[in-house]
Amino acid sequence: MLPAMLIVIEGIDGCGKSTQVERLCTRLAAAGRRVTRLREPGGTALGEQVRGILLDPATEACPTAELFGYLTARAQLCETVIRPALARGETVVLDRFYHSTLAYQGYGLGLDLDLVRAAIRLATGGLVPDHVAWIDLDPAEAARRRARARGQDDRIEARGLAYLTTVHEGFAALAASGEIHRVDGRGTADDVAARLDAALALSP
Amino acid sequence: MLPAMLIVIEGIDGCGKSTQVERLCTRLAAAGRRVTRLREPGGTALGEQVRGILLDPATEACPTAELFGYLTARAQLCETVIRPALARGETVVLDRFYHSTLAYQGYGLGLDLDLVRAAIRLATGGLVPDHVAWIDLDPAEAARRRARARGQDDRIEARGLAYLTTVHEGFAALAASGEIHRVDGRGTADDVAARLDAALALSP
Repeated sequence: MLPAMLIVIEGIDGCGKSTQVERLCTRLAAAGRRVTRLREPGGTALGEQVRGILLDPATEACPTAELFGYLTARAQLCETVIRPALARGETVVLDRFYHSTLAYQGYGLGLDLDLVRAAIRLATGGLVPDHVAWIDLDPAEAARRRARARGQDDRIEARGLAYLTTVHEGFAALAASGEIHRVDGRGTADDVAARLDAALALSP
Repeated sequence: MLPAMLIVIEGIDGCGKSTQVERLCTRLAAAGRRVTRLREPGGTALGEQVRGILLDPATEACPTAELFGYLTARAQLCETVIRPALARGETVVLDRFYHSTLAYQGYGLGLDLDLVRAAIRLATGGLVPDHVAWIDLDPAEAARRRARARGQDDRIEARGLAYLTTVHEGFAALAASGEIHRVDGRGTADDVAARLDAALALSP
């Protein structure tokens, strides 16, 4: 049996993340893996309740309240879904994990990164992914793609381009440190999927 | 003008805490203070949403998810209500604050106290109360009082006497270290109010 694996796909909304997560899960399953696909925040009853609150444009939450909201959902997901799935030998593919917290709340909202990392460790129980791929797309281009999709911006996206540019710089800093792996998000979905496979070394 | 002050009343449910909070607020107002009375979790729109989730017997939350839920509500309350009220020179009376987190989630659920304290500091921004009074009542007696009030147990109370005994021991340990001030919770509400006043040195 193939060993359990935790793969995380990161990036700002509009970068093509969800499309790539779906395609990746299909390829992993075709390669004989039992795949569990999850999204953050969410993936549990508690997490989906918290997701609804955090993304609702009507919600008022200060930076640390927002941080702890995400960690509430993450703690429950790690404890009740991710760890049991890994223990069963499954491949877990996560649409966002704690690098989003570092980028959006740490870099984006200016919270102390060391304190945020300590709180993340408490929420995850120290769980670290095997692979983290960051789909890097210019925030202005990601905004144009979101606009074409005609979706309503959620509370986080509604903060606008300046905020998302800071978030993007956060992901870039994490990639520069070697903590996450940058994947060029430009071009077609096929182009990005090929780069993602190469980054994850899932195909020759 | 009297200086701003943050007073916290702690204790397990059924100890007489809410009655004492109400009476204390009346006495403080009669003494010329502008009083803001708040409860945790709650006190903000976000906090009340989170309170509803945390206390709902149908909610499934692992220990760290529960911890972060409380911290979500607390962060928003500190940032948007408590600090502004103190800045206006008000006297804030809190029905529970972070010593409940130490007792219920730290001692009660066995979470690492140092990590819990670090997360609390992030949520409060380092805010420390001027006075913390713990109304000490035997958990079995508190359970009898709750039963007489015929209230439905919430998710936390439903954990039963063994859990609440551990929580009570947590409060006792905090009192032994001098971090909170023990007030004997036995006897009539008048008895306890007199002891509380003496503990807070609000009357001669």
